[in-house]
Amino acid sequence: MESLVKRIQAEGRSLKGGILKVDSFINHQLDPNLMMEVGKEFVRLFGHLPINKIVTIEASGIAPAIMTGYLMQVRTVFIKKKQPNTLANVYVSSVHSFTRDQDVEVCINSNFLTPDDHILFIDDFLAYGNTARCMIDLAKQSGATIEGMGFCIEKTFQKGGEYLTEQGINFHSLACVTDLETAHLSVCDEPASRKL
Amino acid sequence: MESLVKRIQAEGRSLKGGILKVDSFINHQLDPNLMMEVGKEFVRLFGHLPINKIVTIEASGIAPAIMTGYLMQVRTVFIKKKQPNTLANVYVSSVHSFTRDQDVEVCINSNFLTPDDHILFIDDFLAYGNTARCMIDLAKQSGATIEGMGFCIEKTFQKGGEYLTEQGINFHSLACVTDLETAHLSVCDEPASRKL
Repeated sequence: MESLVKRIQAEGRSLKGGILKVDSFINHQLDPNLMMEVGKEFVRLFGHLPINKIVTIEASGIAPAIMTGYLMQVRTVFIKKKQPNTLANVYVSSVHSFTRDQDVEVCINSNFLTPDDHILFIDDFLAYGNTARCMIDLAKQSGATIEGMGFCIEKTFQKGGEYLTEQGINFHSLACVTDLETAHLSVCDEPASRKL
Repeated sequence: MESLVKRIQAEGRSLKGGILKVDSFINHQLDPNLMMEVGKEFVRLFGHLPINKIVTIEASGIAPAIMTGYLMQVRTVFIKKKQPNTLANVYVSSVHSFTRDQDVEVCINSNFLTPDDHILFIDDFLAYGNTARCMIDLAKQSGATIEGMGFCIEKTFQKGGEYLTEQGINFHSLACVTDLETAHLSVCDEPASRKL
């Protein structure tokens, strides 16, 4: 997605530890027009599939997910960080958080992820594939079907994409960052081999 | 907002401790059409003001905030739960979390809240006014102006509205829950005294 690639080139910053800082438009301050454009692109990529629910994970996935849900006219659920007093009837999984350097327990109410659900999973980043692993785990627990996964930005050098390919998941990333170490960020469109 | 009042009456559930469970459409599973409708209502209520930024707090405020930001064509920022390794250049405040029964540190990057900002603060709930207090604190630290605050649901018996009135804040709530103890939820539109 050209506008996203250009935005990352203009405003993204590379921090140590393989972190790409895009907090001026993706995951702290949000550009609502860009989020809507991202939603439209996900509709183009996944709209032909029998999707009846969007799933994301709090917090940065919510904005692109709700836009996609609005455009596809399907309910949108966000996986929550588990609270100590979370009620019963939840599926629980864990996600490794690199910013906290620990596993974080997450959950989804079992009423909102069922064998009838055909899921499009949306998130801001595909890095090592940790949130994707969590979604796969929750889908297995619930009997839901994953129809696809869409990510705003993929950091290809962190290999989450290779994992999803091995798992046979249909996924797309709207911008691919191939190198954070160079003076200028190496950002490009999704590889042609994966494109629709 | 009649459709929200009806939805709360149909799907809301009262839990012990003054908790209103609306996780089938507001704060876990989301109805994107309802979120867009909420955004339109906030535009009706606040669109005449010189607002140039929406601020909310993760995670449940993000969906109504991004819809409002899209409709108003202004950037949208969410206040983040503070990470141990959060970088410098942030304003820090705290919010009391009733689900965790502890104060949680939150932050906003100082680039995204400045004296030039005229803020509309959006959140899913107005209860005791804790997130609103946090917004007021962050606005004081940064020099930003709060033009208004919009909440999807107000629990009037928890007195956050009285606090905001005392502070002279221009605020609106799209549905008011006046009692959770009765067999049927007491939900109504905003009082006429506050309505535009």
